[in-house]
Amino acid sequence: MKPLEDYLIVDFSQFLSGPSASLRLADMGARVIKIEKPGTGDICRTLYTSDLIMNGESSVFHTINRNKESFAIDFKQPEELKKLKKLLAKADVVMHNFRPGVMERIGLGYDEVKAINPNVVYTEISGFGSNGTLKNLPGQDLLLQSLTALTWLSGNDEDGPVPMGLSIVDMLAGTHIAQGILAALYRKAMHQMGALVQVSMLESAFDFQFETITTFYNDGGELPIRSKSNNANAYLGAPYGIYQTKNGYIALAMGSLPVLAVLLNCEELTQFPENKFSLKDEIKVVLANHLQTQETAYWLNILEPADIWCSDVLNYQQLFEQEGFKVLDFVQEVTMEDGYTYRTTRCPIKIDGEIFTSQKGSPKLGQDNEGILKKFIDC
Amino acid sequence: MKPLEDYLIVDFSQFLSGPSASLRLADMGARVIKIEKPGTGDICRTLYTSDLIMNGESSVFHTINRNKESFAIDFKQPEELKKLKKLLAKADVVMHNFRPGVMERIGLGYDEVKAINPNVVYTEISGFGSNGTLKNLPGQDLLLQSLTALTWLSGNDEDGPVPMGLSIVDMLAGTHIAQGILAALYRKAMHQMGALVQVSMLESAFDFQFETITTFYNDGGELPIRSKSNNANAYLGAPYGIYQTKNGYIALAMGSLPVLAVLLNCEELTQFPENKFSLKDEIKVVLANHLQTQETAYWLNILEPADIWCSDVLNYQQLFEQEGFKVLDFVQEVTMEDGYTYRTTRCPIKIDGEIFTSQKGSPKLGQDNEGILKKFIDC
Repeated sequence: MKPLEDYLIVDFSQFLSGPSASLRLADMGARVIKIEKPGTGDICRTLYTSDLIMNGESSVFHTINRNKESFAIDFKQPEELKKLKKLLAKADVVMHNFRPGVMERIGLGYDEVKAINPNVVYTEISGFGSNGTLKNLPGQDLLLQSLTALTWLSGNDEDGPVPMGLSIVDMLAGTHIAQGILAALYRKAMHQMGALVQVSMLESAFDFQFETITTFYNDGGELPIRSKSNNANAYLGAPYGIYQTKNGYIALAMGSLPVLAVLLNCEELTQFPENKFSLKDEIKVVLANHLQTQETAYWLNILEPADIWCSDVLNYQQLFEQEGFKVLDFVQEVTMEDGYTYRTTRCPIKIDGEIFTSQKGSPKLGQDNEGILKKFIDC
Repeated sequence: MKPLEDYLIVDFSQFLSGPSASLRLADMGARVIKIEKPGTGDICRTLYTSDLIMNGESSVFHTINRNKESFAIDFKQPEELKKLKKLLAKADVVMHNFRPGVMERIGLGYDEVKAINPNVVYTEISGFGSNGTLKNLPGQDLLLQSLTALTWLSGNDEDGPVPMGLSIVDMLAGTHIAQGILAALYRKAMHQMGALVQVSMLESAFDFQFETITTFYNDGGELPIRSKSNNANAYLGAPYGIYQTKNGYIALAMGSLPVLAVLLNCEELTQFPENKFSLKDEIKVVLANHLQTQETAYWLNILEPADIWCSDVLNYQQLFEQEGFKVLDFVQEVTMEDGYTYRTTRCPIKIDGEIFTSQKGSPKLGQDNEGILKKFIDC
């Protein structure tokens, strides 16, 4: 059995962080009902990524909201709010990511929901928490990356700030929300207690940098300095990085320089008897020049048998052709109510050897109103 | 009460992914016992990041392993293995990240541990899963980034592969492990069932790319193309990116070009009446040239009041001076058994308004042997 079977999650959250958490919980067995505004719904439905529109809505929406139901309800109307409260009274988890104060003004703050559902696990996701000078800034991924110094870790020293090219802060906040909800559900099961679970994207971005922030605080407040070329981690010495070869690229993780010098037949490298952190720029230049002289496969064929941590650098087309990718069955086909079918990823967690999949695609706005009214409200 | 109070986690895992998961569970109240090899312990103790050695061991080790106990035991000796099994019989969770087959050879595979502890939650973290052509590759972060195409999303189009400058795959795998363990603990509480929880770094890296992989599969298999300059997400059009100003940088997320043209007083921008994705390179050049003409504060003072999603780009020194950071109390001081004190981050999840902190620093190798023997083994 899936661990969260029979569980009901009512999710007001939009965009990425909250919905990615409820997707994870849905894949682990929970029933997730998305609460949406009639007419427009989750803003993510119309937030286009690239030019790709799938069945009239954004590819992002379809990716994050599969395996969920949609309940369209205008809860600013008192009669509708009453109905919604009947649903909330039966929920195990209620999630939202409105700005601080919005749910309270509607009458659906933690205290109000707790009054009708004493053991509810109530979850708030914010950009910047509910205190402090930053609290009213928009909780958007790129802005969070920029404010939390994440942009000074990728790229090379002279590149200026380089953002990570995915919504990393949203995604981490989503994983933290899911963890907080699961821990609270566990405590609820053991001790019959509800909980208020709060996560901010700001704190998630800091948690992501726990190593580098700890280093900063214990290293006299020195800022990270990326290497001049081939940087992959400002805090790791050479050879750590990606290097160009005659026909592509090769990644090298940690490794002994004298050993590499022999294996790569690189005389010039022997001038560095140890991996001195302060010499990383010079070492990388020597390596970069040398590795360009042969093709990727040539180097891998020497380094892999010697247990050097190295690899090819693949793109999606090359990756998806690998047998090692295909065997995972990581891509599943899901189908929407109207028959529209698309391919997307599955849950990365395996329990008892079982992969959690679901053929259920993302919901059309309000498609589940009738069933939800019948099962939870008009009964 | 912390949700995992009274819970016992026995953790054989090393480096980052597994230990970052047990850190999270420790912060939420669990008792975490690190099983280490006498003499050397977790390899991470001597894996130096930068030049920073804290109290004789690596800063990375101290960051990830605070709030845990250390039990040094040579479980390849039959007598010692017997003792260890007594501890495992009392564990709620057993975790490891050895290569496939290692725990089975020692006699501590899932079946063996289940035989002495039927409801145990047993967790395996691997680099590449236990099937397929990739399974024997080393599960190292940079190599995983390189193999899973993550390196083609950050940086600009002509930069070649650009890795993300943090151990992102380790970190995501850690969050997934924690989620899987929590879901299994919840099911155990409800249904008295143990579980085998498995996570691979490979699948965690794919899950991270759920949006871009879904787009790839539904967009005719086109590879992502980063913009020529100011890239922040290959799938988002202009202005999404970070731009240089007269004295620093400014981040701009999604926004309407005609509105920006007026606010920034940028005549040239009016030639782009809509945010056409295919024109992102041209639009970014216009914006980049224009934004260089004034200081960051000048632009923010215009854009923020107009609710445009924008922000300054800070480094650690600037960030940690912000009142909005200080108010979070995100940095805590922890103390080791020998009195060594250091500053590090805390758990990002808040429950019932409570921040989870713990003053307990990382353990010296084997420091808790006596207490563990007394409480769990010689009793």
